[in-house]
Amino acid sequence: MGSEAENVLTLDTLNPNVIKLQYAVRGPIVTRATEIENEINAGVKKPFSRVVKANIGDCHATGQKPITFIRQVLALCTYPELLKTQEFPDDAKERAARILDDCKGKSIGSYTDSCGLNVVRQDVANFIADRDGYPSNATDIVLCTGASDGIKSVMMLLLTGQDGPDSAGFMIPIPQYPLYSAAICEFGASAIPYYLNEKNNWSLDVSELERAIAEAKPNCKPRAIVVINPGNPTGAVLTRENIVEVIKFAHRHKLFLMADEVYQHNIWAEGVEFVSFKQVLQEMGAPYNKMELASFMSASKGYMGECGYRGGYAEVINLEPNVRAHFYKCISAKLCPPVSGQAVIDCIVNPPKPGQPSHDTYMREKAEVLAKLKLKAKFVTGLFNSIEGISCNEVMGAMYAFPRIYLPDKAVQAAKAAGQTPDSFYCFALLEETGICTVPGSGFREEPGTYHFRTTILPQIDELKAVLNKFTEFHLNFLAKYK
Amino acid sequence: MGSEAENVLTLDTLNPNVIKLQYAVRGPIVTRATEIENEINAGVKKPFSRVVKANIGDCHATGQKPITFIRQVLALCTYPELLKTQEFPDDAKERAARILDDCKGKSIGSYTDSCGLNVVRQDVANFIADRDGYPSNATDIVLCTGASDGIKSVMMLLLTGQDGPDSAGFMIPIPQYPLYSAAICEFGASAIPYYLNEKNNWSLDVSELERAIAEAKPNCKPRAIVVINPGNPTGAVLTRENIVEVIKFAHRHKLFLMADEVYQHNIWAEGVEFVSFKQVLQEMGAPYNKMELASFMSASKGYMGECGYRGGYAEVINLEPNVRAHFYKCISAKLCPPVSGQAVIDCIVNPPKPGQPSHDTYMREKAEVLAKLKLKAKFVTGLFNSIEGISCNEVMGAMYAFPRIYLPDKAVQAAKAAGQTPDSFYCFALLEETGICTVPGSGFREEPGTYHFRTTILPQIDELKAVLNKFTEFHLNFLAKYK
Repeated sequence: MGSEAENVLTLDTLNPNVIKLQYAVRGPIVTRATEIENEINAGVKKPFSRVVKANIGDCHATGQKPITFIRQVLALCTYPELLKTQEFPDDAKERAARILDDCKGKSIGSYTDSCGLNVVRQDVANFIADRDGYPSNATDIVLCTGASDGIKSVMMLLLTGQDGPDSAGFMIPIPQYPLYSAAICEFGASAIPYYLNEKNNWSLDVSELERAIAEAKPNCKPRAIVVINPGNPTGAVLTRENIVEVIKFAHRHKLFLMADEVYQHNIWAEGVEFVSFKQVLQEMGAPYNKMELASFMSASKGYMGECGYRGGYAEVINLEPNVRAHFYKCISAKLCPPVSGQAVIDCIVNPPKPGQPSHDTYMREKAEVLAKLKLKAKFVTGLFNSIEGISCNEVMGAMYAFPRIYLPDKAVQAAKAAGQTPDSFYCFALLEETGICTVPGSGFREEPGTYHFRTTILPQIDELKAVLNKFTEFHLNFLAKYK
Repeated sequence: MGSEAENVLTLDTLNPNVIKLQYAVRGPIVTRATEIENEINAGVKKPFSRVVKANIGDCHATGQKPITFIRQVLALCTYPELLKTQEFPDDAKERAARILDDCKGKSIGSYTDSCGLNVVRQDVANFIADRDGYPSNATDIVLCTGASDGIKSVMMLLLTGQDGPDSAGFMIPIPQYPLYSAAICEFGASAIPYYLNEKNNWSLDVSELERAIAEAKPNCKPRAIVVINPGNPTGAVLTRENIVEVIKFAHRHKLFLMADEVYQHNIWAEGVEFVSFKQVLQEMGAPYNKMELASFMSASKGYMGECGYRGGYAEVINLEPNVRAHFYKCISAKLCPPVSGQAVIDCIVNPPKPGQPSHDTYMREKAEVLAKLKLKAKFVTGLFNSIEGISCNEVMGAMYAFPRIYLPDKAVQAAKAAGQTPDSFYCFALLEETGICTVPGSGFREEPGTYHFRTTILPQIDELKAVLNKFTEFHLNFLAKYK
C-alpha cells in the first residue's frame, strides 16, 4: 500500500465518461496560459509582458464595469443596515426591500424555493411577456446557477438511462459551445452533430438537420435539438424564417426544443434583431405552440457580465403536468440557486423605470457597454478579413469571433508530429509567442479539414488593437515559417 | 398534435432515474406545507395561524441573524464604493480588498478559476492545518456551490458507466441525508445501505459495515463509503476510535472515503469533540495516510447559516495525479462556484484575529448562536423522551432530532389504507392539525418496521417551546385515536 497502484481511482477505474469529457474553454491551453502568468510573476523573461485571456467571455475581467444599480441593490440586500443610510437611491432601496421581503427571515442567507424567489420569477415572466408580446407564466420560470445549470437540468429529463442505440440523442450545432458536448459525455448520452454553414454566415440549414438526424437514428434515440442564438462561437443570429423552419423540423421529428438565448442582448449587425423561439412558437399557433421548449438566459453575458454571481433562468413551457412535477422534484434536490445571483437576474429583467432615480444612469451604462461591444465586433471582423490566410464571418451577435485559418500543409504536418490538432498547434504557438490565449476551433468541433480559433471581442478597444497587431505579426510569421 | 400524448416527455419517456429520485427534505409534505401557507393567506381557517417549517436546516429563515463581519465583507466586495466610506471597520475593508485583489478585473462579477480564488483556497488550507495539526495543501482544496455540489463532483469520478452488477456502489448510512440517495439515483449507481445502531446512540458498527458490503458485492462494485459526522439526521458524533475502525474497514475493502463534515461546528454533548477524518488518517500513518479522502464543508450550517450564498469546499487528498487532472477538468466545465459564496467561506475559515476591530463582535455573535443551539438540542431531546410512545437519542451534534415514534397497529393500518408509509401518515396529520412541517423518517430510510421523523432544532426558543407543546398534544391525541 502507499504506491499509486493501490489507489481506488486510477485511469483504469476512473469513470470513463469523465476521461472522455472535454471543456475547451478552460482546457489545456488555459492551463498553459496560467503557467505562463506564474512564470512571468517569477521573473521568467517572455516576448510579452502579460497574458491576454481571450478564451472566455468574462466581461469584468477585461475591465468592463458593473452596472451601478445592480451592485447597489445587491449591497443593500447583503447588508440591510445600508437601507438606513443616505448613500443609495430610493429605487435601489425599494428593490432591495422587495427582494428581502420575499426571502425567508428577510435574509438572502436563507434558502429560497428551489425554483427561486417568487418576485424574481414573476419579474422574469413579465420581462418575457413584454419582449415577445405573448403571456409568460411565473410557474414556468426556473431560476438556476447560471444558464449551464438550467441546461443540464433539462437535459437530465431527456436521458433514457440506456447506452448505445437506446441512448438519448441531442442534436447540437457544430461548432458548438462545449458545455453541450461535455454534458452529453458526462450523462453518457449521444451527440447528433449538425453542421452550420460557414459559407453562408454560419446559417442553419434544415437539409443539414435532416441529414444529421437520419444518420444518427440507428445509433441513438433523438430527443432534443439545441440551438444557440445568437451563436457561440459563431456570432450568427437566426432570422425568424429560419426559426420557423427549425420548429417545424423539431415537430416533424418529435424533438424537445432547447434554445440557448443567453446572448439575446448582444446584437451588433445592422438590420438584425433577436427573435426568441418562444415568440415564434406562439406566432405559429397550433400545433406548434404546444411544443415543449426550454429557453435559457444568464446574468453573465449581455451588458451586465455578472459571471461571478452565477445567475440564470430557464423558461420551460408545455411540459406535461406529471413531467413538470418530476422536473421540480429533481431541482429541489439541488436546494436553490445562489440568492445573490437571483437578485442580479431581478435587476436585469426589471431595470429602473423612466422617472425613477436610477433610470438614466442604468440606461446610459447599458448603452455604453453595448456601443463599445458593437464597435469591437465590427473592428475584429474587418481586421481578420484583411489578413492573408484568414476569413471571418461577420460577428452579428454574441461576444466572439470564430475566424477560419488556412494553414499550410507543412504546419499541418508539424502539428501531427507534435501530436496536436493543427488549430491547437497554431493557438499554442500564438500563446507562447504573444501571450494571447484563444481557444482552438477543435474544442468547439468543426468541419473536418477546417481550422479555426475562437477569440472574445471583450478587451478594451486600445488593448484590442494592440492585441490584433501582435496577432497579425504572429500569423504572417507563422505562414512564412511553414510555407 | 396538441394533446398530451404528443409530448416528447411523458411518464413513459421521462428519464427513469428522474422518476425514481426522491429528496424528502423538500418532498410532498413540504409542497403541502406551502399550499397550506397559501390557503391561510387566502383566508382559509386553520387550527393554527402559521406553518412552522421544521423540515430543513435553514437558519436565517427561523430568525437567526447573520454574522456582521461576513455581511460587511460581502457588501464591500459587492459595491467597492463603500470602501471609501466610514461605515465599515478596517479589518472588513482589508478583507474585502484582499478578496477583490484576487478577482480578475477586481470584480466579484468575473469568473474565478474553477477551483475557486487562490486566497480563499489558501485560507481554507490554513484553517484545516490549524484544526488538525497536519499540513493541508491549497491545491487540494476545491471550492464548490454548497457542499452538495462538491459531493456530486466526487461521486461522478467513482461511477463506472455500467449498470447492475458493474455499477458503482456507494456505502451510505441509514438513516442518511437524502442528497446521497438522490445523487445515486440520478447517476444510476447503487446504494449500499449500512444501518446505524439506534439502540447505541446511532453508533456506527464495523460488523454492520462488513455485513452490508458482503451482501452488496454480487450486485455492484463497491467504490466508496460515505460517513456523515456529525450525523444528519441522527445527531450522533463519531469518536476517534470509531473513525479509526471505519478507515481500516475502507482500507481493507479499497474504498474511497467521503466524509461529510458540514456540521463540524455544531457539537452539543458534554465531553464530545469533533475529530476530522483527515486528522485521524494522518495520525494513523502509513499505509492509511495515503488513502483517498474527500471531506466536505459548507457555509450553510455551523453558526453562520448562510445557506443562500451556496458556499462550500472539499478537501480531496491523495488522488493519483492523472485522476486529479481529470477531476479538475470536470470541475472546469462548471465554470466556477458563486464568488460571493467563496467570500463567505473565506470569512468563516479566517475570522478576524484577536486585536482586530471586528474580532470581539464576531466571537460574541458566534458564541451566542452556538449557545442557543446547544440549549435547544438539550431541550428537544429531553422533551421528546418525556412523551409516551417516543424515544429520542441525544442530539450530540448537527441541527436535527430524529425521534423514533412507536405507532399503534391501527395507525399503521390506517396509513396502509391511505397508501402512505406510517411515518408519512403521521407527519401529514401533524402538519394538517398543527402547522408543524417535519420530514417523515422514510425519507432518510430507516430500519424496516421502525418509524421516525426529523425535525430541526432551529426555531427560536420561545417558538420551539410553543411548537413542542402543540406537538405533544397532537401526539397524545393521535395515540388515543388509534389505540
